[in-house]
Amino acid sequence: MNGADSLVQTLFHSGVDVCFANPGTSEMHVVAALDRVDGMRAILGLFEGVVTGAADGYARMAGKPAATLLHLGPGLANGIANLHNARKAAVPIVNIVGDHASSHSMYTDAPLSSDIHGICRPVSHWLHSTASARTAASDAARAVQAARAAPGQIATLIVPADAAWSDDAEGPAPVLPVLGPAPVSSEAIDRVAKALLAGKKTALLMRGAATHRAGAEAAGRIAAKSGARLLHDYFAPRITRGAGVPRIERIPYFAENIVEFLAGLEQIVLVGAPPPVTFFAYPGKPSWVTPEGCELFYLAHPHEDAVAALNAVADAIGAPKKGEGVALVRSGLPPKGALNSFSMGQVIARFLPEGAIISDDAVTSSLGMHHSLVDAPMHDILYLTGGAIGGALPMATGAAIACPGRKSIAISGDGAAAMTLQSLWTNAREKQDVVTIICANKSYAVLNVELARTGASNVGPKALQMFDLHNPELDWVALARGMGVEATSAATSEDFAIQFEDAMKTRGPRLIEAVL
Amino acid sequence: MNGADSLVQTLFHSGVDVCFANPGTSEMHVVAALDRVDGMRAILGLFEGVVTGAADGYARMAGKPAATLLHLGPGLANGIANLHNARKAAVPIVNIVGDHASSHSMYTDAPLSSDIHGICRPVSHWLHSTASARTAASDAARAVQAARAAPGQIATLIVPADAAWSDDAEGPAPVLPVLGPAPVSSEAIDRVAKALLAGKKTALLMRGAATHRAGAEAAGRIAAKSGARLLHDYFAPRITRGAGVPRIERIPYFAENIVEFLAGLEQIVLVGAPPPVTFFAYPGKPSWVTPEGCELFYLAHPHEDAVAALNAVADAIGAPKKGEGVALVRSGLPPKGALNSFSMGQVIARFLPEGAIISDDAVTSSLGMHHSLVDAPMHDILYLTGGAIGGALPMATGAAIACPGRKSIAISGDGAAAMTLQSLWTNAREKQDVVTIICANKSYAVLNVELARTGASNVGPKALQMFDLHNPELDWVALARGMGVEATSAATSEDFAIQFEDAMKTRGPRLIEAVL
Repeated sequence: MNGADSLVQTLFHSGVDVCFANPGTSEMHVVAALDRVDGMRAILGLFEGVVTGAADGYARMAGKPAATLLHLGPGLANGIANLHNARKAAVPIVNIVGDHASSHSMYTDAPLSSDIHGICRPVSHWLHSTASARTAASDAARAVQAARAAPGQIATLIVPADAAWSDDAEGPAPVLPVLGPAPVSSEAIDRVAKALLAGKKTALLMRGAATHRAGAEAAGRIAAKSGARLLHDYFAPRITRGAGVPRIERIPYFAENIVEFLAGLEQIVLVGAPPPVTFFAYPGKPSWVTPEGCELFYLAHPHEDAVAALNAVADAIGAPKKGEGVALVRSGLPPKGALNSFSMGQVIARFLPEGAIISDDAVTSSLGMHHSLVDAPMHDILYLTGGAIGGALPMATGAAIACPGRKSIAISGDGAAAMTLQSLWTNAREKQDVVTIICANKSYAVLNVELARTGASNVGPKALQMFDLHNPELDWVALARGMGVEATSAATSEDFAIQFEDAMKTRGPRLIEAVL
Repeated sequence: MNGADSLVQTLFHSGVDVCFANPGTSEMHVVAALDRVDGMRAILGLFEGVVTGAADGYARMAGKPAATLLHLGPGLANGIANLHNARKAAVPIVNIVGDHASSHSMYTDAPLSSDIHGICRPVSHWLHSTASARTAASDAARAVQAARAAPGQIATLIVPADAAWSDDAEGPAPVLPVLGPAPVSSEAIDRVAKALLAGKKTALLMRGAATHRAGAEAAGRIAAKSGARLLHDYFAPRITRGAGVPRIERIPYFAENIVEFLAGLEQIVLVGAPPPVTFFAYPGKPSWVTPEGCELFYLAHPHEDAVAALNAVADAIGAPKKGEGVALVRSGLPPKGALNSFSMGQVIARFLPEGAIISDDAVTSSLGMHHSLVDAPMHDILYLTGGAIGGALPMATGAAIACPGRKSIAISGDGAAAMTLQSLWTNAREKQDVVTIICANKSYAVLNVELARTGASNVGPKALQMFDLHNPELDWVALARGMGVEATSAATSEDFAIQFEDAMKTRGPRLIEAVL
């Protein structure tokens, strides 16, 4: 058996049955091996940022890693931005990166030779080059083990071409045990239970599994008993929300809004979340936004079992078996006329099917949209956790692979979508039930806001051109059709309602350009 | 004066007057500063691979660095693939990468915090974080100095937001001396002169300035006297060729073809080039392709003055003042009917204006095309030096900024062009005289070839799908129009001839999809 077969079989036995790929010559034997494992899916992306972003969206929804298959250092490099997001989201991914045959690697003048370890390291929790065909299987098993270690890690295995093609592999390696979430100590649970009953203004700041349905329900019990607020940070990886699920409030984006939002809190309990900090720093504004005098302590660190801990705390404080879920508000249709993010949100909330998955990279358009969505039917929302734009389209692609029975919706700013528009082609190729909404304000709108906030003054026309996407305007209907996806454009709320309702009623890839 | 102003003024005084950019919040003050320097151009790319690839194409043609302006670690990461190509091409680039304010960098939980040094290092010859506004100008001067050191380097300066916005900079820094090409020793020149007169079969393998016009002419003198062959490697950065310029032969791509091509050589003189190695390794085929017993020695290392050395050698061996230039062959029109790479080459050669710049990432379609082009009017050709696909469109964009009076032509495979299609938008925005030709064979065709060559066997349908781009077909006319570029499609050689001739006669951005 060659190294590639032993590697792919090991991945599959270890539970990895999806491979997002943009392979090249050095990965040929791994590609061939994918075919020899029934049940292993291979999904092509035209750009590596699509491949890694899809693996991120897949992992957020499947709760287990997909593999990526990438072509040497530059191929992995094209995927770094979305691996950065995945890393921040603490999801599991197994990157398989081909390399030159070991006999070739000494020729640093070969065009594609690079510092491949240097390129892979900054986004990899675990990084290893397999030495030969004989080690490829065991290294693959270790990579999956590393990826699945709680809360989820990026594991990158570099596979030299000769390790893939050599025939002296012994077969697939055994599945290695996974270090799942660690139990939270009874001391930590007691401490939080006491704090919750101390009569202080308290919030639970939650992340990871704590914001999925079971976590939200456990936290809802605590809120019902103690009155504690439930919060998630602005770019949390995945929130299950909407009708029937206890409400978790979103911490705002800007420092001054966060300060106001958190004002008065005397205790913040961290449940799989880090302490709150701002996205960027601004002259004279704080980065650290925990109110002065507010006590910060952990119920669960990211690698710990937050859901069990939340339920244990709920039991300890005598909380009811069930907290208060959000009551469904079927949004009315917005007034006719020009679209804006609020009217878009009303339309989306009105027609959203239960169980939809929304991948959000709408930047400035996001805020208004969520006003209505929080009371919509239950759905999952995936935010741009690492802040590297271009996440929504690939995440929606990967989420649709993880959950083929659910509607996957990408909502993206136009500037952000332009980074990874190749994702549409994969939607078409895989006939995915993915609806992409482009918030076409024809600008990097957030940068116009940020320009003023950072205190950059005397700004001239050259600078303003750097945030303006009017000249020329991107025609998203043409771009989508060029990628094989049916598309329409809506300039009014009534047109958007017609198009979005239709997209929700039919299956298959679809793009709606919302002209803002 | 703030740090950003001192930095941008220093760049400009040091000769850097073009900035390719995709900025974000942390670069706001640098953006504002660009406006305050008359003559500094700011050119927006919708994706960082466009930004860095344009800087590469610019540097290859301008012979000096452009700046890039990139948004933190993930922004630079999106540009790594084309920086890898630029690094292999040994061209100068100054990357300005914003970072969080130093007060914010301690918060590693901030979404966009990353190992920014780790991300930048693998593609940077020179890498530095400026400490404050007071050091921004001198560090910018050092970055330009590093970039311009012969033969050309990638210099990356990380600029924390507070170093840009703080007001205690002292003004621009003085221009630092540049370490230009070092003179070649007389011993090296004598040795090569003797070797050329020794009656052995000899080739000069040339790269860098040696393959620009003055170098080609100097080498042509040597060839005229000694009969030495003139060669360049397959992915050389820039070759000036065509009518009037001595012919430099291109070393083939595949190992067995290289072996045949170099067979019989007794001496290879390296002129700014590394020894020849293959692109990839294959089971049972050589990576090192210098014929056995053939002596390898350097006339000029990459940092040395190859052109002066070539002329000195020519003088030493009593070569004529002028070698033999290529005789112009105005290619006839190809037979009517289906397009292929040979008929495309005939059409392009027939209508190519003198002084055109061709950026080539046509992969399998490249070979046939160059048959006719080598006898066309004088032009420059830029190859995909580092082998990371997606180079042609951005390079053509940058070359057009460097040489606005010359026709810039990108010839790209469809798979390669899909990596960086956002470049078309910059062509439209800047109203560039750039013509993009997509060789639309609807596949990663080279991988079908490589599959067999690497010995991957028993290949099934899943694997073959990884190289096939038919499902769905990319509609390049729609994609180009979506990016604001006029486009047409040609499925026959006569249609291609009509469209290409028209594109050569008119100015402005244009795309032709060549259906192969």
